Amino acid sequence: MIIIKVGGGRSINWDYLAEDLSTIQEKFIVVHGANAWMKDISEKLGVAEKIITSPSGHISRYTDSQTMEILTMVYSGLVNKKIVACFQKHGINAVGLSGADGKLWLARKKEAILAKIGTKTKLVTDSLTGKVEKVNTDLIKILLKGNFTPVVTIPAITKDGELVNVDNDRAIPVMAKDLEVKTLVFLFEASGLLQKSDDPASKIDRINKEELEKYIEISEGRMKKKLLGVKEAFAAGVKSVFFGDGRIKNPLSSAIKGKGTVIN
Amino acid sequence: MIIIKVGGGRSINWDYLAEDLSTIQEKFIVVHGANAWMKDISEKLGVAEKIITSPSGHISRYTDSQTMEILTMVYSGLVNKKIVACFQKHGINAVGLSGADGKLWLARKKEAILAKIGTKTKLVTDSLTGKVEKVNTDLIKILLKGNFTPVVTIPAITKDGELVNVDNDRAIPVMAKDLEVKTLVFLFEASGLLQKSDDPASKIDRINKEELEKYIEISEGRMKKKLLGVKEAFAAGVKSVFFGDGRIKNPLSSAIKGKGTVIN
Repeated sequence: MIIIKVGGGRSINWDYLAEDLSTIQEKFIVVHGANAWMKDISEKLGVAEKIITSPSGHISRYTDSQTMEILTMVYSGLVNKKIVACFQKHGINAVGLSGADGKLWLARKKEAILAKIGTKTKLVTDSLTGKVEKVNTDLIKILLKGNFTPVVTIPAITKDGELVNVDNDRAIPVMAKDLEVKTLVFLFEASGLLQKSDDPASKIDRINKEELEKYIEISEGRMKKKLLGVKEAFAAGVKSVFFGDGRIKNPLSSAIKGKGTVIN
Repeated sequence: MIIIKVGGGRSINWDYLAEDLSTIQEKFIVVHGANAWMKDISEKLGVAEKIITSPSGHISRYTDSQTMEILTMVYSGLVNKKIVACFQKHGINAVGLSGADGKLWLARKKEAILAKIGTKTKLVTDSLTGKVEKVNTDLIKILLKGNFTPVVTIPAITKDGELVNVDNDRAIPVMAKDLEVKTLVFLFEASGLLQKSDDPASKIDRINKEELEKYIEISEGRMKKKLLGVKEAFAAGVKSVFFGDGRIKNPLSSAIKGKGTVIN
């Protein structure tokens, strides 16, 4: 089984991915973002995106109740069902799920987040943010057994039934552990992990998993989180991680052939 | 097994319904609307709701691609996951689905709709509207077997993988037929079927299913469609239909006890 994480950018080509997926034998789970649509709909609704930076440099979305509503609409509604429809068109029997469905992604809510605002550090206590601690694998297992393809995204849910925002990239290692998945593929809007984020020619072909810490330190923003997730995934028993370009033909098979960045 | 259709009004009390549902032994499927939220979000996005009236007096939503995006966000995202979270809070292991997931609601797209605009009749050819023809019961069956509660809403999907708007109320008879369901409950923002829609005291306690045609003729708007769905449900093998108030404590058990309108 493979977990495929696909970024939430506009230039991800879902038709290409679906064509590629419809030829592979192995079972897979797709986890997706929706960041570009989130930005767009938030703007149309006149709600400004608020990003929190932790003192250690991690960024996250400040998720008040209004932002949670938009996030739920956009991720688990608009984009999730667009992907499901695209997969169905290509003969993949997709079932879209949020982390709340069947308590798939059971999360602990963060009581407080330390946020760096300018040079000051502030305690944010009203963000609906959490961390996935347990994956209810039953739902995934019965769907896979029934030849359905799970397509999963945020929000997650707490044991008290509250929707919380979590980091898709960091939910994946928990999924990998609880489902004993050995291969992860991350597809996004770049050819792989870039030495310089603005230089496509600076792609790194291979990283030894022992060197991950170094790359986590020098990388920023979303990539930092992705690499943190990858590090957690190796600790959870994953054997190979492939980064690849989600914009090209045969995105999955290209990534697995090592055309992007291989981490192992 | 019971199919429970719950209206999309703001004053439906989902906590009361969840409390009531958590005490019943029988398996159930919930189908829901989201009309009040659809109005609200459409307005906030500056997109006017367009309603089509057919020459025979049936109303439907004119669903261009922009409206389809909002509908998908609101029904299968925002409201579906709110309900899932509420059910989870009350210990019901809900899984939210659209009709597109697992091709649950397979629909035929209407190529053209006759619409009455003022005194003229016009042919509308660009509305993403359809009619559910087949329910893929496998997904529902494996979920119910796994002790999950399906919570279903629009959109539906065509065999070509296109999302289409369908009438939830008229998808229900197809579900009832394909799943051999004998009991339907419709909960909405009224005490039952009212003789005069603005007079709560005019509730009809019981209707003989043979008389349905008469009520379809005299009713309007959404209620006309609901009754059409009910008529189709009896033709599909349903034995009892209960209309009840979705705003009160114990909404389901009250409806089944005959406190609303009983049709059989």
